[in-house]
Amino acid sequence: MRRDEVAALAAGIGELDPAAQTGAALRQDQLTKPPGALGRLEALSIWLAGVQGRCPPDELTRKRLVVFAADHGVAAQGVSAYPAEVTAQMVGNFLDGGAACNVLARSAGVTVRVVDVAVDADPDWPAEVGKHKVRRGSGAIHVEPALTEGELSAALGAGAAIADEEIDAGADLLVVGDMGIGNTTPTAAVVAAVTGADPADVVGRGTGIDDGAWARKVALVREALRRSSAGPADPLTVLAEVGGADLAAMTGFLLAAAARRTPVVLDGVVSGAAALVAAQLAPRVTHFCVAGHRSTEPAHRRALEHLGLDPLLDLSLRLGEGTGALLAVPLLDAAVAVLRDMATFGEAGVSTAT
Amino acid sequence: MRRDEVAALAAGIGELDPAAQTGAALRQDQLTKPPGALGRLEALSIWLAGVQGRCPPDELTRKRLVVFAADHGVAAQGVSAYPAEVTAQMVGNFLDGGAACNVLARSAGVTVRVVDVAVDADPDWPAEVGKHKVRRGSGAIHVEPALTEGELSAALGAGAAIADEEIDAGADLLVVGDMGIGNTTPTAAVVAAVTGADPADVVGRGTGIDDGAWARKVALVREALRRSSAGPADPLTVLAEVGGADLAAMTGFLLAAAARRTPVVLDGVVSGAAALVAAQLAPRVTHFCVAGHRSTEPAHRRALEHLGLDPLLDLSLRLGEGTGALLAVPLLDAAVAVLRDMATFGEAGVSTAT
Repeated sequence: MRRDEVAALAAGIGELDPAAQTGAALRQDQLTKPPGALGRLEALSIWLAGVQGRCPPDELTRKRLVVFAADHGVAAQGVSAYPAEVTAQMVGNFLDGGAACNVLARSAGVTVRVVDVAVDADPDWPAEVGKHKVRRGSGAIHVEPALTEGELSAALGAGAAIADEEIDAGADLLVVGDMGIGNTTPTAAVVAAVTGADPADVVGRGTGIDDGAWARKVALVREALRRSSAGPADPLTVLAEVGGADLAAMTGFLLAAAARRTPVVLDGVVSGAAALVAAQLAPRVTHFCVAGHRSTEPAHRRALEHLGLDPLLDLSLRLGEGTGALLAVPLLDAAVAVLRDMATFGEAGVSTAT
Repeated sequence: MRRDEVAALAAGIGELDPAAQTGAALRQDQLTKPPGALGRLEALSIWLAGVQGRCPPDELTRKRLVVFAADHGVAAQGVSAYPAEVTAQMVGNFLDGGAACNVLARSAGVTVRVVDVAVDADPDWPAEVGKHKVRRGSGAIHVEPALTEGELSAALGAGAAIADEEIDAGADLLVVGDMGIGNTTPTAAVVAAVTGADPADVVGRGTGIDDGAWARKVALVREALRRSSAGPADPLTVLAEVGGADLAAMTGFLLAAAARRTPVVLDGVVSGAAALVAAQLAPRVTHFCVAGHRSTEPAHRRALEHLGLDPLLDLSLRLGEGTGALLAVPLLDAAVAVLRDMATFGEAGVSTAT
């Protein structure tokens, strides 16, 4: 997906349906409860009506998590508590159903798809997993661009294609997750480049690194940002220079999902950084996203503030894989159920406010 | 349940099982994720192991909401946006399955029981609903005690009996909800009496009252507290003087659930106030409770701080009925699933931290 094609995709993103939203808000006020008493659950239900263009919104019956797995050259610099081989091992764990995202997806009625975007291995996984693979590991951003222009195109196109595949297969809610040892380093670089934050204010502890590794991570992000001068006005170059194939694929995925009017639950800092880039290209993309949670990564707080998204949960998670987003999915189901199934004052014969 | 019987029940509340908690914490560190990366979900899983005395904890398969419905004499003073008849009408709505608690309970896999503790009506509901009824409406607390000593006993005993009935029927998770026009007025009085807060700092907007009604509500709470001198050292007298049959029944319910080692999800300010009273009688009662959410009522924030409970959700709800607690139930299911179903590093062949 060339830059002009990305621009066309971004330009095609519409607005929430105002009539469906108004209908949902009016219906909330007729249900047997004080107006507004269900707080953010009411806002969620109105949002979903606006996304779907229907009031009440349809039940969410085909909820799908897509985990973007990828390695990063900077992982060799000791920025993670885990060796880089864990990325591929965890993809195996996802395929076997034993990881946190598998367990939480089952608990929330969500199915899981794992995509090898740039894992630095060539293992014996089903062909479906690797069919959108861009390369083996993105470049080490402190010394080289993460992606060539061709790889950037391929990654953006991969993400958009994956969204299309899932929506064509009937997905009515998409959940976005990440897996990649070292991926919070390029993520912090992207958040710093787009928001203007200092690296020290956005670099976090990732998988749980010590002070020495944290200082190395800050220095690497600073080197990457010095090497590249791309800023918020050129977010695609930010992705190619200091991001990676996973961040680029997620960006394409978010743009395509919004263009197809499909709601997306964002997870942690990696999907948050992709949303930052997507919103630079098309501010309306955030109208189709909800922030599932706020993680402990400082770059995530910064990204959410910049996006104007208020997370549903704040449970001190810092895992990725879509886990925080998955925990928020039952709130979306509940919001839809309220609008679909609650009785009105008239139906229930309950007196209204005096 | 006489005061000496309540004291005996309170004295029989045990501790969380330290071996099960240690086992759960060790298992969390073996699962395929960085230690601690699932944040509060890990803490929840360890808590449930400690409550059940088993690691991993059993799945929660019989989750039960009990809604305590009751009227209050102060409702005649214009402290609610709704007429008092709505309490009985909403019980009918619960029995018909059309209220918010019914919809959210179905969404969370929870069944609903409605108990008429002190509804000011004598309607044609199934006998089961009224079998623990204490009286028709609690006393108007600004001019008279809410309950006689005999009614206090009856209400405490009713709550304890309901917990026993549910646990005997197999409930492995209890959710506590409230319904009663005017019930946030005695609730604010109880929170003020136990915590020493000024009425103006704990009285809230309830169903959505205007400034005039709010000022009346503050004045009524102040009159009630002047009329009675009961304080934190005598929490049962607080219940009888400025509380009500619903608050007393919930207190008995929480004590009995804790004595039976059954986890309880607290909802909003009404169950929070009952938990305050129960914790004055038996501090260990909070070990068996989790705060489902924080509502917008100022007395709820105050009660949770006093109890040292950190709510799982903060979604600006102010409805009651158990709705905020029900929204948190999927987090408990997810916490159990993580401990039961995730693969360990060894099982999945994933490398551990370097």
